[in-house]
Amino acid sequence: MAELQHKIVLDESQLPTRWYNLVPDLPSPPPPPLHPGTLQPVGPADLAPLFPDDLIAQEVTGERYVEIPGEVLDVYRLWRPSPLYRAHRLEKALGTPARIYYKYEGVSPAGSHKPNTAVPQAYYNASAGVRRLTTETGAGQWGTALAFACAQFGLDCEVWQVGASYDQKPYRRIAMETYGATVHRSPSELTASGRSIRAGDAHHPGSLGIAISEAVEVAAGDPETRYALGSVLNHVLLHQTVIGEEALLQFAAVGEVPDVIVGCTGGGSNFGGLTFPFLREKLAGRMSPVIQAVEPASCPSLTRGTYAYDFGDTAGMTPLLKMHTLGHDFVPDPIHAGGLRYHGMSPLLSHVYELGLIEALALPQTECFAAGLQFARTEGIIPAPEPTHAVAACIREALACRESGEEKVILTALCGHGHFDMPAYAAYLADEMTDEDVTDERLAPSLDALPTVPA
Amino acid sequence: MAELQHKIVLDESQLPTRWYNLVPDLPSPPPPPLHPGTLQPVGPADLAPLFPDDLIAQEVTGERYVEIPGEVLDVYRLWRPSPLYRAHRLEKALGTPARIYYKYEGVSPAGSHKPNTAVPQAYYNASAGVRRLTTETGAGQWGTALAFACAQFGLDCEVWQVGASYDQKPYRRIAMETYGATVHRSPSELTASGRSIRAGDAHHPGSLGIAISEAVEVAAGDPETRYALGSVLNHVLLHQTVIGEEALLQFAAVGEVPDVIVGCTGGGSNFGGLTFPFLREKLAGRMSPVIQAVEPASCPSLTRGTYAYDFGDTAGMTPLLKMHTLGHDFVPDPIHAGGLRYHGMSPLLSHVYELGLIEALALPQTECFAAGLQFARTEGIIPAPEPTHAVAACIREALACRESGEEKVILTALCGHGHFDMPAYAAYLADEMTDEDVTDERLAPSLDALPTVPA
Repeated sequence: MAELQHKIVLDESQLPTRWYNLVPDLPSPPPPPLHPGTLQPVGPADLAPLFPDDLIAQEVTGERYVEIPGEVLDVYRLWRPSPLYRAHRLEKALGTPARIYYKYEGVSPAGSHKPNTAVPQAYYNASAGVRRLTTETGAGQWGTALAFACAQFGLDCEVWQVGASYDQKPYRRIAMETYGATVHRSPSELTASGRSIRAGDAHHPGSLGIAISEAVEVAAGDPETRYALGSVLNHVLLHQTVIGEEALLQFAAVGEVPDVIVGCTGGGSNFGGLTFPFLREKLAGRMSPVIQAVEPASCPSLTRGTYAYDFGDTAGMTPLLKMHTLGHDFVPDPIHAGGLRYHGMSPLLSHVYELGLIEALALPQTECFAAGLQFARTEGIIPAPEPTHAVAACIREALACRESGEEKVILTALCGHGHFDMPAYAAYLADEMTDEDVTDERLAPSLDALPTVPA
Repeated sequence: MAELQHKIVLDESQLPTRWYNLVPDLPSPPPPPLHPGTLQPVGPADLAPLFPDDLIAQEVTGERYVEIPGEVLDVYRLWRPSPLYRAHRLEKALGTPARIYYKYEGVSPAGSHKPNTAVPQAYYNASAGVRRLTTETGAGQWGTALAFACAQFGLDCEVWQVGASYDQKPYRRIAMETYGATVHRSPSELTASGRSIRAGDAHHPGSLGIAISEAVEVAAGDPETRYALGSVLNHVLLHQTVIGEEALLQFAAVGEVPDVIVGCTGGGSNFGGLTFPFLREKLAGRMSPVIQAVEPASCPSLTRGTYAYDFGDTAGMTPLLKMHTLGHDFVPDPIHAGGLRYHGMSPLLSHVYELGLIEALALPQTECFAAGLQFARTEGIIPAPEPTHAVAACIREALACRESGEEKVILTALCGHGHFDMPAYAAYLADEMTDEDVTDERLAPSLDALPTVPA
């Protein structure tokens, strides 16, 4: 039989040495974060208790490129460059003339794209003399990545994990502990915010908002401790652009140009990381892919949210961020793609969406898991629940090509494997998974109570 | 900082196109399997109800090389060639002048080396018109690999999983089902052998021996069904030699030659797969590595077993195999490296050990998990419990080099990741893991009851 190339592999010497900052290439910059009291843009001093200077500088930089430190590159090389795959076997199963590629981030130690930013965050904190990082995690992908990164740079790592996930997904907690992190069930007795919740309900299932409050409280109260966030912010998306820069090299190696790029969006870091370098090429007129963000129908911030200033957390402890939001007290249905259950969206990605540079699509989770199953049985990799959304959108596009006969080149962001999420597949296989509709009444009522920001 | 190369990556075009058969290069062939009734060597007709002709031919072939079919290579390319890593960060943590390399098989869809043989077994069965494969699995690594392989070739896959593992490790079962396999808790009501056990205890925890009996019984009773085995037999070790052939190319690429090769041994397929091509080079005088098999102290078939004819399964349904055995009714302590809890050893590997071509070492599991933890925190990958044995032996060797100042090149077989085995790490971290000694009284009493084989 004819030899088909499945993997486009780069040598370590081809690992990108700088991150790409999309902001200076946009027609206008994104609106700045505001202090909720003064409604003035937040400055470095406001952020210093939580982040080291290098990361604050990256958050607001106007430079197009930021050099990746050698110490970070050395850890990246444990798994990067990550492979780009041509999905020959999926194409054949679909009977499509489309050529499907997927950039696979599940080869990282934590099994997702999250270490791309966890590693530099740990590095810059260690360089600044920080001894300990705190963070929150839901299902645990971000906590696992930060635990791994802290082990690489000799930092203590303390994770507040949403109580319900802590109870239901012990494998993720054990992975964090294997890397040396300390994991607390949130709400915990260790913080004032945790104790106040527990006073009402000692077995409270927790929420991402509460876990953020606990991690931030501990970091703010100890000069040797800082806080780390796994998505949403500019510097996080900046670090993730290593994905897209590699993918550009890989497409060049096989002489292809994508017509369509699809990725899932929770806070936006996986999607931004893959697509921003392609967006640079698009803005420069060197290619013209359709770029599509895919979100769960049960948490549709881009497709049904309001573009407004809102808090990044449920408790209202963060600066106000201009973003597509369902309201900071919106509680999504308990779908299985935990990494996509965020009420807001990266302000930078929201801005890009407002500029009309990307499209957005919301999909029900049963369609996504059907796609995940078909992907596993053809390509072998069991996708995490989050990227099944991208796979489902990719399959829609490929089937449309079967109808139209178009030989489109589709690029899909496969941001992680599902090894720690198998109960979600069990629910799908047992026909116990449902799709929830979000009624208009549930959307954004909390926004009415927010301070009015002058235009 | 200076750039260190972590991964030695081969292009798909460098994927080996043939498997290596060690037998013709040995000074004498291994003793043949015998029919337990006649004590005569088994012939193809004896095996035909269980295996297709192509695999039976490979089991007894005298050819040095067997061509890998194009259809198998096309599936191999989903993850092969697998990376060879230089463990710079582990070396630094150990302060050793040794250079440590590890060949990582966890990049396969099933997360271990097992698909290397599952894929050709599924292919040859599908080519022979077989419709369904049955097999047994303990912890589930083999069952997962066969489920994946059957999905690739449109075969039904039916797995009998040891009851205790079925109950305790649901993630593995879900992975098999995600690939489309049907998984039964063994002992089951579906077979006579299962029913006879369940009659005594409806909640019997099962054993590998019982699960084999069920899978063999179903295969033997249906002309469109065959049985697949994941280790021990010659054709299984043959398929795994793709690991060692790749590693030879990768060492050549960096201009290194291993002084020591360590791998863990259960049935022997991971160890044989990596080391046989190096053994070919050693027998030809082109290199002279020390080759060391590492087994658990609680199941020490090579280091404390008897070299004798014994049954491959507990129930005595298989041919008699000349191997290092602890007795077919030996029940190892419930250690966490489920893949190493086998009473016997591959006859081919046993023969190689008798010829003095390899060494063997038994290690307690707590030392292995300590090594696994150190590996995860330096190299990022969480090893499966089985290869922590190889990692522990590698660390012993590297620390000896620190004492002696020798700059040895050590090659380690990292045959899989531990994503589905996290409870084992939890037990270690909670200080709940113990080491069991095997008393001499427990070793091999069942051998006395076996038929005497004429010399």
